[in-house]
Amino acid sequence: MGFDSPNQHCKFEVPEIIFGRGLLNQVGACARRLGGKKVFLVSDEGLFRAGWVDRVIKSLLDAGLTFVLYDQITSNPKDHEIEDGYREYLKHGTDVIVGLGGGSAMDAAKGIAILGSNGGRLQDYRGTDRIHCPLPPLVLCPTTCGTGSDVSQFAVINDTAEQCKFTIMSRCIAPDISLTDPDTLETLPDEYVGSSAVDALSHAVEAYFSVAASSLTDVNAQEALILLNKSFVNAVQERRADDLENLSRASLHAGMAFSNALLGIGHALSHPIGGLYNANHGHVNAVLLPEVLRFDFPVVEKKLAGFAAALGHHSAGNGKAAEEMALETIDTLLDAGGGPRSLRKLGVREEDLPGLAERALKDVCVLTSPRQTDEEDLFGILKRAY
Amino acid sequence: MGFDSPNQHCKFEVPEIIFGRGLLNQVGACARRLGGKKVFLVSDEGLFRAGWVDRVIKSLLDAGLTFVLYDQITSNPKDHEIEDGYREYLKHGTDVIVGLGGGSAMDAAKGIAILGSNGGRLQDYRGTDRIHCPLPPLVLCPTTCGTGSDVSQFAVINDTAEQCKFTIMSRCIAPDISLTDPDTLETLPDEYVGSSAVDALSHAVEAYFSVAASSLTDVNAQEALILLNKSFVNAVQERRADDLENLSRASLHAGMAFSNALLGIGHALSHPIGGLYNANHGHVNAVLLPEVLRFDFPVVEKKLAGFAAALGHHSAGNGKAAEEMALETIDTLLDAGGGPRSLRKLGVREEDLPGLAERALKDVCVLTSPRQTDEEDLFGILKRAY
Repeated sequence: MGFDSPNQHCKFEVPEIIFGRGLLNQVGACARRLGGKKVFLVSDEGLFRAGWVDRVIKSLLDAGLTFVLYDQITSNPKDHEIEDGYREYLKHGTDVIVGLGGGSAMDAAKGIAILGSNGGRLQDYRGTDRIHCPLPPLVLCPTTCGTGSDVSQFAVINDTAEQCKFTIMSRCIAPDISLTDPDTLETLPDEYVGSSAVDALSHAVEAYFSVAASSLTDVNAQEALILLNKSFVNAVQERRADDLENLSRASLHAGMAFSNALLGIGHALSHPIGGLYNANHGHVNAVLLPEVLRFDFPVVEKKLAGFAAALGHHSAGNGKAAEEMALETIDTLLDAGGGPRSLRKLGVREEDLPGLAERALKDVCVLTSPRQTDEEDLFGILKRAY
Repeated sequence: MGFDSPNQHCKFEVPEIIFGRGLLNQVGACARRLGGKKVFLVSDEGLFRAGWVDRVIKSLLDAGLTFVLYDQITSNPKDHEIEDGYREYLKHGTDVIVGLGGGSAMDAAKGIAILGSNGGRLQDYRGTDRIHCPLPPLVLCPTTCGTGSDVSQFAVINDTAEQCKFTIMSRCIAPDISLTDPDTLETLPDEYVGSSAVDALSHAVEAYFSVAASSLTDVNAQEALILLNKSFVNAVQERRADDLENLSRASLHAGMAFSNALLGIGHALSHPIGGLYNANHGHVNAVLLPEVLRFDFPVVEKKLAGFAAALGHHSAGNGKAAEEMALETIDTLLDAGGGPRSLRKLGVREEDLPGLAERALKDVCVLTSPRQTDEEDLFGILKRAY
């Protein structure tokens, strides 16, 4: 498989998408349309304090629905939190599940939905296509601007016994409806705006250069880059509503791209790092991204002009210039993310690098990397990002 | 609603999409995945003669399925053909419906699916959201490059008693799976390649300038324009496989755009013309498109640069230049379509123009036109296109 394969096959699957400021008041209508009577609302305490949970509850009540709230979800959602949620889901006889929050609340909602119709333990569904029974109706409402969980076929869950994260991948865990209300970003602390937007950036870049990319995913990856380049720096500096909306929109486009094109070695490396140090996912991706790009550039010449153009640079066929200009813009965006800019500053121990490279090589994201890689390559990237 | 509304709401919904050369051999696997045992295959005699029906039948048999073939569908599909198909569907106890063909076979498959679970007459579902029972699983495989029916929420059916076409619009008539195998274009006569590609062009243009457009639809409309500009002329002149594939892909992107952004006065005008003269839908759209663009240009300044850029022109902020360059490129593409370039040559009678304008004003597509319009405006467009 490669960029110029004349016989390239591709697939594209996204849930029903609803996007717009103030639309959190439509959650109730969405849940009712999916047959809901008693909704199980999954969120976290931060969103409750910010008032967004109340907003959704009002919309459920306005739609004539009752609800049960479960907000005992923490960041990097834990298996036992999700299992507790599942028991609450069953106990109250609830039907439609609504996930409101960042990746943690949304992935927890997915986990509760999986157990809700399939039973067993979350670990039973680890890997690809292990879910057999259709899930209860699911509405996901992102309140950060990076995860893409609201449109993706993935859930990442923390196995607390093993102290590592695992991924569940299945077309059936994409929700029925993805509803984004960019107003929710208004109460998101700067730190999370920055770290989730660099996550969206890494999704867009890796999806664009994935060997599974197609025009269906490329147009979305490029739009994410255009929007991030336009609004990221302003959004964290001035927090104007239209810039924040553009970050929400960028996250959505990037999610549509990577859920279908998958990712590359940046995420293959960031998964074991995140697991070992409980590090912020966006920040880890941000540290790795420039080195991953330098590694990939020699094999992605044909897509370089489109990449640079999305970042505002027209290189007139000069590949080297396109690479440099694109890297410079990426660097500016990563700075806006506000996180540490090296693995060392992230708290990674140098002696762990070989083991991290070894584990990254087994990650599924390696398979869609544009450049074939081995443990030595990955170790080299980690060293240069250290 | 308008282009710069700070509070714009949008929705985006597309079926699962599978695209690639040779993939017609996956129809059986798709039907089986949807629970099929005995498939009802809707197509037409031309596709049977070209061998594509056999290709699909082989794939159904390879997947362990049985089938019933119904190929009594003609262009501008007639209500009675669809009703006959529905009776065959019931009689044989078939389950999954597969539509293979242009807009006619696919819209017929949609019609049979509607009747299959809702009963009654097709006219009962005329208009918006009149369908109440979920449809049988539906797989649509386009073999032309313009209709977009394989991803859209529309079906257009010919009421033979009233001698007019009517539209059924409902989210539930988008299929479960849209499967495009661009190889099928190899046997499509030049005339139909041209007329369906200009149809895709008109979808992309009208969706891009629709008041319901959003970044989710714009990226697809622009990609359709890019691909048509790149490959349309070559495709009809040389019929190389990669150019034909680009036309298939353009049709898919344009379909994703217009199914969600809807259309404008070009289609509002072309519907009554198509009904009155049984004229080729693509050719009617082609004749109207330049005049519709000239009418719309004064109110779409903000989107003009993106439109011209998708057609290969960078106008450096000069709106008038962008308009002229874009019109010139559109003109080249319409010439490649090979149809008549005036309403007179299409066989429209001049004395009918006022009545056509009157009927067009009642068409739902008027609602998403970027420029408010009245009967006099529409009559003016018809006169200029005559």
